Amino acid sequence: MAKTNPGRFFEDYTLGQVIEHAVPRTVSGGERALYHALYPARHALYSSDAFAQASGLPKSPIDDLSAFHVVFGKTVPDVSLNAVANLGYAEGRWLKPVYEGDTLRSTSEVIGLKQNSNGKTGVVYVRTRGMNQNDDVVMEYVRWVMVRKRDVDAPAPETVVPALSKVIAAEDLVIPEGLDFSNYNFALSGEAHRWGDYEVGETIDHVDGVTLEEAEHMLATRLWQNTAKVHFDATFRPDGQRLIYGGHIISLARALSFNGLANAQMIVGLNGGAHANPAFSGLTVKAWSEVLDKAETNVPGVGAIRLRLVATKGGAPFELRGEDGKYLPDVLLDLDYWALMPV
Amino acid sequence: MAKTNPGRFFEDYTLGQVIEHAVPRTVSGGERALYHALYPARHALYSSDAFAQASGLPKSPIDDLSAFHVVFGKTVPDVSLNAVANLGYAEGRWLKPVYEGDTLRSTSEVIGLKQNSNGKTGVVYVRTRGMNQNDDVVMEYVRWVMVRKRDVDAPAPETVVPALSKVIAAEDLVIPEGLDFSNYNFALSGEAHRWGDYEVGETIDHVDGVTLEEAEHMLATRLWQNTAKVHFDATFRPDGQRLIYGGHIISLARALSFNGLANAQMIVGLNGGAHANPAFSGLTVKAWSEVLDKAETNVPGVGAIRLRLVATKGGAPFELRGEDGKYLPDVLLDLDYWALMPV
Amino acid sequence: MAKTNPGRFFEDYTLGQVIEHAVPRTVSGGERALYHALYPARHALYSSDAFAQASGLPKSPIDDLSAFHVVFGKTVPDVSLNAVANLGYAEGRWLKPVYEGDTLRSTSEVIGLKQNSNGKTGVVYVRTRGMNQNDDVVMEYVRWVMVRKRDVDAPAPETVVPALSKVIAAEDLVIPEGLDFSNYNFALSGEAHRWGDYEVGETIDHVDGVTLEEAEHMLATRLWQNTAKVHFDATFRPDGQRLIYGGHIISLARALSFNGLANAQMIVGLNGGAHANPAFSGLTVKAWSEVLDKAETNVPGVGAIRLRLVATKGGAPFELRGEDGKYLPDVLLDLDYWALMPV
Repeated sequence: MAKTNPGRFFEDYTLGQVIEHAVPRTVSGGERALYHALYPARHALYSSDAFAQASGLPKSPIDDLSAFHVVFGKTVPDVSLNAVANLGYAEGRWLKPVYEGDTLRSTSEVIGLKQNSNGKTGVVYVRTRGMNQNDDVVMEYVRWVMVRKRDVDAPAPETVVPALSKVIAAEDLVIPEGLDFSNYNFALSGEAHRWGDYEVGETIDHVDGVTLEEAEHMLATRLWQNTAKVHFDATFRPDGQRLIYGGHIISLARALSFNGLANAQMIVGLNGGAHANPAFSGLTVKAWSEVLDKAETNVPGVGAIRLRLVATKGGAPFELRGEDGKYLPDVLLDLDYWALMPV
Repeated sequence: MAKTNPGRFFEDYTLGQVIEHAVPRTVSGGERALYHALYPARHALYSSDAFAQASGLPKSPIDDLSAFHVVFGKTVPDVSLNAVANLGYAEGRWLKPVYEGDTLRSTSEVIGLKQNSNGKTGVVYVRTRGMNQNDDVVMEYVRWVMVRKRDVDAPAPETVVPALSKVIAAEDLVIPEGLDFSNYNFALSGEAHRWGDYEVGETIDHVDGVTLEEAEHMLATRLWQNTAKVHFDATFRPDGQRLIYGGHIISLARALSFNGLANAQMIVGLNGGAHANPAFSGLTVKAWSEVLDKAETNVPGVGAIRLRLVATKGGAPFELRGEDGKYLPDVLLDLDYWALMPV
Repeated sequence: MAKTNPGRFFEDYTLGQVIEHAVPRTVSGGERALYHALYPARHALYSSDAFAQASGLPKSPIDDLSAFHVVFGKTVPDVSLNAVANLGYAEGRWLKPVYEGDTLRSTSEVIGLKQNSNGKTGVVYVRTRGMNQNDDVVMEYVRWVMVRKRDVDAPAPETVVPALSKVIAAEDLVIPEGLDFSNYNFALSGEAHRWGDYEVGETIDHVDGVTLEEAEHMLATRLWQNTAKVHFDATFRPDGQRLIYGGHIISLARALSFNGLANAQMIVGLNGGAHANPAFSGLTVKAWSEVLDKAETNVPGVGAIRLRLVATKGGAPFELRGEDGKYLPDVLLDLDYWALMPV
């Protein structure tokens, strides 16, 4: 029997199953520096220990999305090796900042299964949790993917589609312990705009663009130990292109959003997300945001802002879907998240 | 009003104005490792804690140019976002080594203003200072840039052109506290040539070459959080090329200069510098140096050497300017700096 | 006299000569993170402090091959700058894990010399040792290279060809102090296959592939401070290609071998190796392994496995040599090493 990992097929998943993902990872200053080399990341809380300490944290954490990528990367060999499509995210929450020296691992619980009518594929819903070395859950999210069946004649499981929140309620967001924006330095953060300056419905064109490079998306995707072949092997796809990991676009767009949202410091909730179109080397990515909602928190000085973050490879800002309701061809990413800002 | 940063225009600067630049940055072993991955850097003091300790320092500092890039990068959104040209550097001094764990921020003071006769642009002179978390100034330098006016009808400011030293006097160079080359190991440093072996007027061809890559200059430039669009967005210039950050060429040339100047360990002064021609991916960079001056210091065993460092993209070494006095087309960089060597 | 390093020529080596190589290097979390960004490395012992601690080590070491590359890189200016060919490796042993904060340097002892019959070149055999800041030898290996003579009329040295072991005896392998696989977690390591599950003669296709990029091999090679011109300067070879450092292929193939050999955690012996064909950017590298031998060790729970690791740029797995006994054109690397596994 081959010793290599063939990945799981649709019939290998059962409701309630908990998969412990392999290869825990200790993060260090190296991961922090690489994140800043790979993305134009400038949010001050993740760039400066002094700024983080002035905000009530012990030091500057690893970028929230970097933590997400590490947790996500571990699930790939067990969840998406035979995936046809990454269908969606929901109920993502960051529960505890991750610091240099922390060791992350992840588990996924199968919370839904639905065979497709073609009998060849099915949808698997998992709730993934990332834990640190003290078994604290540092983040969790639900993801659903379409997975091939190994044997089309395998019986279909009972269909269970989990009820997922479209949006995380503001009161369910977890504010990191000690966070305090009362001494927030708007000169050092890079912009004067505070929570109160943003209006629901407001849109922001983040202006800057970054042209994608093969070496950069591969370095990033490997750093998260994401092993999906399509990202690394130019001979895998018939067109000879390497498909860029969707998370690379998320991080790039988030970093670009600094220009206009420099004070949307910490990501605490992921309401949903769609990789609307594939991304390839050579494309130039730009981003725009829309303020979807605002909420107060129970921490003085800290407000929550719900943002739509859209990455594009062309076209005009603020255009998302065509008349048919489908994403426009230039849209790469449509992400819905909660961030924390000084009020 | 747009929330993105439009940058400052010429009429936004006033004499004596002090701009506090955003996004402080904590450096770690990650920045050190990336510097060594991005440049063929081998000066032993920056490679080995043990070598640095034998030289009287607590440990190996972050490369001097890496500290410069971090300090410089912070100024870009405030000083050069609307710059037409980077005109010059002067009076640069490294005042304190930067170590892992230090957090750097920068300020710039406007020390000169001169509107150009065309009325559309002007020259802004700033003295930039980089500070660590203890508010110690770790380096300072003067830079002048040509900046567009927002409104050509805005009144011209009073012309003030600061008197700048062409060369930093040797007695004004700051030798890092504790530095001591009396136990210097020439086998471990890589070359036997000491301060006394170099003669004023001597030229050195550094022989090695490095071909530039898009991914590499972008990783470097992002690492310094330099946000100038032209370095990242291939759609920005009409010719579809990404202009390489001039500092990338400085670091590359300095690293190449190890071969012949392995013992010119620490950079302590920047007398001047010109980015003679733009650099693009695919070019192969070589470097040569000329000894411009030598000086003793007040620290036993430590000599100062003033070097011209030239980076080229072709042509023969030691050719700098044409008969018209202009830089030859193959010259990328002409840098004038002071370094410290064992006598 | 030129101050740049011309490298040593064949007549510059004498039997018994010990060369102290320059530029010691302190490794940090940055080197660890970069290793994981440059290669799809997932062996858990090198990814997680917690996993390493559960295996009896103080924390996660720097990857064994990373330590090898650092030690090797230092020898390049003294051993292979004028080398025509890298002919072989033998008797490589890892003697002590390398951790963040360690400073590595290397020495090479000339143990053999043989002038070639053409009188223009000769073979130099060196035993290289890498030491940490406490002068502990962390690894050693023999390498032999063909080197040009400066002066074809220089007299030939007495021919001395050292007797080298074809294979390191299992009892000579050094098991890191404290290593203990009795609490080994096969879920976290990524595969269930233990030492007892592998049979001598068994072959494993590692399935995954990675397409080579210029920026990536240059970043890696510079990180090890390997200065050989051919890896960086596209103008150096007549065909305009940059030859990829053979060690880059070793690390890539080893990382790919995780898929099927996830529990072959630590490399402790290098029996031999050949860079069968040169590698260039754009090629897609795959790997396969063959179990050459197995041995018990004197540490309970720890078994040794001897593996052939082959990297290819095409062709079918498990094909190595043609009918003429020569390596097939698609074979890049044939490496013979010992690793430690849980029994």
